[in-house]
Amino acid sequence: MPMIHIYLYEGRTDDQKRELAQAFTDDIQRIVGSPPEATHVLFHDMSKSDWAHAGKLASDE
Amino acid sequence: MPMIHIYLYEGRTDDQKRELAQAFTDDIQRIVGSPPEATHVLFHDMSKSDWAHAGKLASDE
Amino acid sequence: MPMIHIYLYEGRTDDQKRELAQAFTDDIQRIVGSPPEATHVLFHDMSKSDWAHAGKLASDE
Amino acid sequence: MPMIHIYLYEGRTDDQKRELAQAFTDDIQRIVGSPPEATHVLFHDMSKSDWAHAGKLASDE
Amino acid sequence: MPMIHIYLYEGRTDDQKRELAQAFTDDIQRIVGSPPEATHVLFHDMSKSDWAHAGKLASDE
Amino acid sequence: MPMIHIYLYEGRTDDQKRELAQAFTDDIQRIVGSPPEATHVLFHDMSKSDWAHAGKLASDE
Repeated sequence: MPMIHIYLYEGRTDDQKRELAQAFTDDIQRIVGSPPEATHVLFHDMSKSDWAHAGKLASDE
Repeated sequence: MPMIHIYLYEGRTDDQKRELAQAFTDDIQRIVGSPPEATHVLFHDMSKSDWAHAGKLASDE
Repeated sequence: MPMIHIYLYEGRTDDQKRELAQAFTDDIQRIVGSPPEATHVLFHDMSKSDWAHAGKLASDE
Repeated sequence: MPMIHIYLYEGRTDDQKRELAQAFTDDIQRIVGSPPEATHVLFHDMSKSDWAHAGKLASDE
Repeated sequence: MPMIHIYLYEGRTDDQKRELAQAFTDDIQRIVGSPPEATHVLFHDMSKSDWAHAGKLASDE
Repeated sequence: MPMIHIYLYEGRTDDQKRELAQAFTDDIQRIVGSPPEATHVLFHDMSKSDWAHAGKLASDE
């Protein structure tokens, strides 16, 4: 606890994921008080053809 | 709001996803009243070897 | 297969969920060809204080 | 895009969720470049009797 | 790693969840080799009016 | 019902997934009483660069 699933467009680099994971874990420690080792972050890369908004695939926009 | 995650066997075409996204978004507008731009649909393609029913992988059936 | 998780604000009635479940299941049968008994829909009611957009809780808007 | 589901023990206050949502959204803007309005955060409160680690319910520890 | 989300009808007792968590964690250790402390299990209780199969709410059956 | 999503590092074999699916389904039948055909298990393979613990990507450890 806590556990984060984040869904984002594919193409984010490992460096960006590295920074996000550290930032989220720091936020949780600062705001909720959970020690870093309690936090898990799972990144789910999504193709733009697998994400629709307002009824349209993001790949069509 | 609302947000939909749909898990289905891989192999559905972009056209099928395009139609599904539009249909779900229309359903939600008609039934719940949410404007289309409030609705997100995320498609998660699953291999048949990653889906088990009744204790058996779908790829074994 | 397929499996749908839908997250929406709490307050939708059972009748609305009943209609959504039927509509989604019909869409999938029409567009993807899956028989109705293959489709599961799970509704997840969310409090507006558990949903943030653009950095703000929906309950604050 | 992006969409975050965060699972945490129940008992976090609205103020903590408000701060977390803002912090995550800021992190994403800074690191990935997504505008705040693209980011959704969904909070899922979990009872300690619904969370097990190492085979034990958190409520038993 | 690994992380399990299990969705089941509400009404399962803490004892049943306790047994399930232990059994899943043991299975994973035996089959995949992960040490118990690597495994998390999150239980999500679902009302029968929030679960539809074949287009019908489970509460209607 | 029940439905399991399990997230684990990629590299588990089909045989391991086959055994896990059977074991989880048996556990649920024994402990909760659900017939095997009610249980679905979805396996989600995760790259170590998509999984962070304590603020660090697993691929960095």
